[in-house]
Amino acid sequence: MAGYAIVGLGYYATQIIMPQFANCKQSRVTALVSGDPVKAKRFAEEYGVPERSIYNYQNFDRIRDNPDVDVVYVVLPVSMHAEYTIRAAQAGKHVLCEKPMAVSSAECEAMITACRKAGKKLMIGYRSHFEPHNLHAMRLRREGVLGKLRFVQSEHGFPIGDPTQWRLKKALAGGGSMMDIGIYSLQALRYISGEEPTSVVATEHTDRSDPRFKEVEDRIHWTLTYPSGLIGGGLSSYSSGHGHIRLTGDNGWIDLDPATGYGGHRMRTRIGNDEQQVTPPPGPAVNQFVGQLDHMAECAMTGKEPIVAGEEGLRDLKIIEAIYRSYAENKRIMLT
Amino acid sequence: MAGYAIVGLGYYATQIIMPQFANCKQSRVTALVSGDPVKAKRFAEEYGVPERSIYNYQNFDRIRDNPDVDVVYVVLPVSMHAEYTIRAAQAGKHVLCEKPMAVSSAECEAMITACRKAGKKLMIGYRSHFEPHNLHAMRLRREGVLGKLRFVQSEHGFPIGDPTQWRLKKALAGGGSMMDIGIYSLQALRYISGEEPTSVVATEHTDRSDPRFKEVEDRIHWTLTYPSGLIGGGLSSYSSGHGHIRLTGDNGWIDLDPATGYGGHRMRTRIGNDEQQVTPPPGPAVNQFVGQLDHMAECAMTGKEPIVAGEEGLRDLKIIEAIYRSYAENKRIMLT
Repeated sequence: MAGYAIVGLGYYATQIIMPQFANCKQSRVTALVSGDPVKAKRFAEEYGVPERSIYNYQNFDRIRDNPDVDVVYVVLPVSMHAEYTIRAAQAGKHVLCEKPMAVSSAECEAMITACRKAGKKLMIGYRSHFEPHNLHAMRLRREGVLGKLRFVQSEHGFPIGDPTQWRLKKALAGGGSMMDIGIYSLQALRYISGEEPTSVVATEHTDRSDPRFKEVEDRIHWTLTYPSGLIGGGLSSYSSGHGHIRLTGDNGWIDLDPATGYGGHRMRTRIGNDEQQVTPPPGPAVNQFVGQLDHMAECAMTGKEPIVAGEEGLRDLKIIEAIYRSYAENKRIMLT
Repeated sequence: MAGYAIVGLGYYATQIIMPQFANCKQSRVTALVSGDPVKAKRFAEEYGVPERSIYNYQNFDRIRDNPDVDVVYVVLPVSMHAEYTIRAAQAGKHVLCEKPMAVSSAECEAMITACRKAGKKLMIGYRSHFEPHNLHAMRLRREGVLGKLRFVQSEHGFPIGDPTQWRLKKALAGGGSMMDIGIYSLQALRYISGEEPTSVVATEHTDRSDPRFKEVEDRIHWTLTYPSGLIGGGLSSYSSGHGHIRLTGDNGWIDLDPATGYGGHRMRTRIGNDEQQVTPPPGPAVNQFVGQLDHMAECAMTGKEPIVAGEEGLRDLKIIEAIYRSYAENKRIMLT
């Protein structure tokens, strides 16, 4: 059983992640880190966390002395990911960090270095890698049922609300839709295809008169090329709703829609002329949040490398930077 | 009742178009033009076309003396569209010409000029403009149910077979998938959005070791920008199957899949949280082929301008040329 310290008690941490520990086999909440002592106390009571294991952002480093904490789970605004990942590693803890990993690839590299130096594991919260529909899609692709892969597409977006939220502040979020919801499209274009893209060209549009988009971008559409000749198309949007992945080959396609939500996934396949609903997919019905938490716990306890380690987050950040450069400089960017 | 001369007796003309005249109210087959006298005679008997109204490519111009022919329907390989449209106009006939209109925008302009000079109507065979699901989608967009439009996408493709067919010869087809099936994506990105794009950037991949693609391109993926800030994504493929249109706005989306086939269309909408199947759409269940033929007949008889006139075909060819230029020169092309 690994003990988790949850850093940041916002909506995602408290409403989505923390209730899932009840379903975990190897993970439990043993510490909380928050700038709000009242909120921290309330959740500490709910999760049976002793008062001595409540930290704030000033005394966070004392977590090194807490033997109940194996993993620090960083669920903060993006601009704080690097600092708290590095401080956690220096405190001798393994780190699970939410996506996007950081506001820049340089920060990602510093995080990887810090964890390596401390001899600690670093995993990024790419929960789709633990979601049964996405896993089944990857399995089918590996089995070759689609024949040669020709086109992979992924669109993700939602109409964002409150213009004052941190996601719409450049300094906190590092960017706009591309950093937040667009990363689902980008990740999917990599894990569903099983290939690393070699170039990107991107087009952006943001209505700067919209109060939500004073600082960050709204929509980006991009094209990836891959070594095999596969082409990928991605969309990221903060003004319209999308949640779709489709991989098409010579023999048919695999379609996920909704593809990457908290639940409610739907999967269809068309192989030759045979179109099928594949919901639920075969295999164990693992909850993606539980799968993610217990995988990190296992890595922390056994020394196994996480399947979505820091290098995976770094790769996405490098491509996001190339996407931003592509539309800023209005040209195709080679991915090195 | 308008009399049609069918020019070219290939699969699409004889198996898809001609059987539909039986359902038309204002259109009938009155002449045939073919290089194969045996085939022409067989279809002439089937459709009650008198022997004097069978033409070949040499004596085609004599059609000017045939009072039974009002409209010449050009269903030939693309490279022959311009010649037969211009000869038909010069013979004093209205012209319905299959898409793509011609192998170049210069040819399109010559066709428009020839028909204008002859005082004859020129229509392009964009049958989706007569198809009830597509029409209903356009109606919903005009009614504004989606709010501000944010993203429009369209993917069309099929795994092409026989490497010896005319569609895979550059000289006959003018290009590859983009000219043939990709034009459905491009047209849809214009008629479903109701806006004219202002720039395009395209990415192409063709496996030149595949015997089908010695001369023409396989796949192209492109991004369009529009004056309103809408972004469009298109795909054309000769190696994978696609047939999809989706228009997404602030409030939801309209989805057609299959979108533009001969039949079997399916339409869904999501407005707010309300997802609906809209098959069949409200309104009269017009067969798209019948609608197209009778519209041209009406234009020929009343002098009305076709809703998909030559200028519409020219516009697509100009954008296709920009798409080809974009990937050849590896840059964004402004559409003028």
